[in-house]
Amino acid sequence: MTTEKEQTLIELYWRNATDRVVGPDHGVSEEDLTSVSEAIQQALATVVGQCRRGELGYAALPTHGEYAERVSQLRAKLVGGTTDLVVLGIGGSALGNIALQTALNPATHNLLPAAQRNGPRLFVLDNVDPAWIDDVLCFLDATDPETGRARWQTALFNVISKSGETAETASQFMIFREKLREKLGARFAERVVVTTDAEEGTLRDIAEADGYETLAIPDGVGGRFSVLSPVGLFSAAMCGIDIRDLLKGAAAMQQRVEAQRWPDNPAAMLAAIKYLMYSEKGKGLHVMMPYSNRLSALADWYRQLWAESLGKGMTRDKKQKFVGPTPIKALGATDQHSQVQLYREGENDRLVVFLQVDRHPCAVSVPDVFGDVSGMTYLRGADLGQLLNAEKKATEYALAFSERPSVTIHFDEISPATVGEFIYLYEFTTSLMGELLDVDAYDQPAVELGKQATFALMGREHYEEFARSIRRLVEEDGAFRI
Amino acid sequence: MTTEKEQTLIELYWRNATDRVVGPDHGVSEEDLTSVSEAIQQALATVVGQCRRGELGYAALPTHGEYAERVSQLRAKLVGGTTDLVVLGIGGSALGNIALQTALNPATHNLLPAAQRNGPRLFVLDNVDPAWIDDVLCFLDATDPETGRARWQTALFNVISKSGETAETASQFMIFREKLREKLGARFAERVVVTTDAEEGTLRDIAEADGYETLAIPDGVGGRFSVLSPVGLFSAAMCGIDIRDLLKGAAAMQQRVEAQRWPDNPAAMLAAIKYLMYSEKGKGLHVMMPYSNRLSALADWYRQLWAESLGKGMTRDKKQKFVGPTPIKALGATDQHSQVQLYREGENDRLVVFLQVDRHPCAVSVPDVFGDVSGMTYLRGADLGQLLNAEKKATEYALAFSERPSVTIHFDEISPATVGEFIYLYEFTTSLMGELLDVDAYDQPAVELGKQATFALMGREHYEEFARSIRRLVEEDGAFRI
Repeated sequence: MTTEKEQTLIELYWRNATDRVVGPDHGVSEEDLTSVSEAIQQALATVVGQCRRGELGYAALPTHGEYAERVSQLRAKLVGGTTDLVVLGIGGSALGNIALQTALNPATHNLLPAAQRNGPRLFVLDNVDPAWIDDVLCFLDATDPETGRARWQTALFNVISKSGETAETASQFMIFREKLREKLGARFAERVVVTTDAEEGTLRDIAEADGYETLAIPDGVGGRFSVLSPVGLFSAAMCGIDIRDLLKGAAAMQQRVEAQRWPDNPAAMLAAIKYLMYSEKGKGLHVMMPYSNRLSALADWYRQLWAESLGKGMTRDKKQKFVGPTPIKALGATDQHSQVQLYREGENDRLVVFLQVDRHPCAVSVPDVFGDVSGMTYLRGADLGQLLNAEKKATEYALAFSERPSVTIHFDEISPATVGEFIYLYEFTTSLMGELLDVDAYDQPAVELGKQATFALMGREHYEEFARSIRRLVEEDGAFRI
Repeated sequence: MTTEKEQTLIELYWRNATDRVVGPDHGVSEEDLTSVSEAIQQALATVVGQCRRGELGYAALPTHGEYAERVSQLRAKLVGGTTDLVVLGIGGSALGNIALQTALNPATHNLLPAAQRNGPRLFVLDNVDPAWIDDVLCFLDATDPETGRARWQTALFNVISKSGETAETASQFMIFREKLREKLGARFAERVVVTTDAEEGTLRDIAEADGYETLAIPDGVGGRFSVLSPVGLFSAAMCGIDIRDLLKGAAAMQQRVEAQRWPDNPAAMLAAIKYLMYSEKGKGLHVMMPYSNRLSALADWYRQLWAESLGKGMTRDKKQKFVGPTPIKALGATDQHSQVQLYREGENDRLVVFLQVDRHPCAVSVPDVFGDVSGMTYLRGADLGQLLNAEKKATEYALAFSERPSVTIHFDEISPATVGEFIYLYEFTTSLMGELLDVDAYDQPAVELGKQATFALMGREHYEEFARSIRRLVEEDGAFRI
């Protein structure tokens, strides 16, 4: 392995996933890596080829300047008059937005006065829970003390859906559009930005009829790979996040994972370890555990990327095979007090991927007090970032001591660039994993049945027979209810 | 099975976990239930006996009126002058507080003006992330536009730790106490409420020296079983949650699970299904998937309860055995667009426990618009609660169709009473599972090593040799970093 330093600011560290630390049953040996070396190199060649031939939509995003340009223009036009940005979207049309906002703005963003925020308050409504929607409707009904006007007057709605027919987003859109029309009359359309297919679909048609500003979801970019498209960029830009740096970070990582050969390629090494852990070492659970609240929502984004891309019921030549590591989100140090008992003493069936921030964005020191309290003196003068990272190292040690493997992804800092790098690293690693597991990483066939069943249960036309067959299988039977 | 209706408002429904729906390989049959019937009855008798003899601390909480009394008195004294309540605690000293607040107050609670909130804003700081702590420090430094005073003047701090030596809580306490002293001078102690051991420990000593109001953490109540003690009750009461109804709900469930015999006892049936799924059907992953944002944080609370209680490395007679189902949090309908692909087509290794709200707290209707848009007409006039529950039923069906088992816990409504019922149901079910898995459900031996390692890495006295041994095992080696 060389240690040649690239231009990127995140790094992969994997010694604690090797046999040297956690033993041969649970750790990856040199021989293990050699055994998959050919498959990895093949996967790498295939995916790099697909990227370069334009076959993987997401690979075009980091260097696609026009999207960022269009988003920035729209931001410049709209940000001034906007106090509240409400994103209507779900799954890939929400998780990236939440991850960027959580990583790159204060946790108190929505609580700050306008002068101290980097943009409007942000609400990403990724569910149809009536209580939650009602909470937000009431919030918008109220007068904003800073402007003296009802928030409807200065709220902006970004509706995100490739087709417009996603039930959750469609129903939310119908509700909020009607309210906006009520409150704003003819000018309601100025307060809606639609992010949808560039050419066709229900939402595109409505956008044209109503006269909304629109942003395009590029062809060939699935929802879970869309965060670096206008899907994720618009809310980020509105909230003051430097989307050019975000894309630059992604582009730097792209360059690195396309150029570097095995075994010096971080995506290839990460995929090799995850694949070996899954296939050879009985580690079906792939935990992501950031030691940083700001990075915590990246773990939710990863959950979708990993589960929908790799959880598949057949190989690419259509042979049945139930496959896919289960992604799990955890948060350090918090989950040391919740999950680590299980991680150390439960079955040895998981790989933990720590995210560590080497230089935290703020310095907070523990004051030099309680000099006479023996249980507390070691904390005097400590920096919280140092404490948090010591806890991470302690957990890494405690897991290793019990032969539980882990890897660490180091973030030099939390910035648009490092977040962009991380996103691209994981997208590319997911593509490699699809090759190694021999599954189609870009479809999601199993989601369709539930959507159809929802249509049937909501009484959509022509679904009557299907509704009956659903009821036959799962209708409630009081004999099984206590 | 009888269907006799009890006084409680939550019910267990399990037909979709039976062989009738998901087949004999993945579903529980009558024979399976018969095979564990004796073990369940034994477990039930044991746990009920422990509860009645006062051996399980948590069992005394629902009917222990004095704690609620003391909490209510303290609330009456403090709520008037308090705009912001900051809880310093982690693990069991935070998860219950967050779960109660999320379930029983609006998602926008902290954004509302004082007149519309049911109590102070609430911040539960369950991590030592410097960025997050700094965000909250800055928020408190600012002037509250409603009072015209810096928020430090009207903030209240509830420090929760049994001993006071939990590193995260201790360091936070040192930071916030010093700030308070700076800002408030001699009267700083009036703005701290300590929840700790009734008699002894570092935090108790400091509370007495500084002169804080205190609340007691009862003996024999571990952190993860403490939500119905002053640990969870104080922040709930401050935020306007009816803690008497909460306790009444818990007491009703307690009466029910202690009185009802197998197989009419919901805790016993839930434990039997979970145990059979884990031990006989290869379902090591126990997902909790509320179809309700308000109930979502109960799934975080459950994660700790389940992982720390059941993830154990030895049986009660000290034989080594790595055991414990892995709890996983999901959220409906959101995670249909993230996890359901994997749940249907990945390995058949999980049981999904849905939480369903039969009557949602708010009614929001989709307006009758877009009559000419074919993909949307079925949504016109729909109630969001009806849509959300149809999505749940659709997912239940899609899982069942792929032979993936599920059970549903029905909440008649979301109220302090049903939340109290649910909490007690799960605590008691956890005790039964401990019996069935033959593990001690009340200790957490594997957490200790990480705590010790943190002491060592932070340079605590007398840990020097241990620090060296940690570095020998897991110190970073640049050859494994790219």
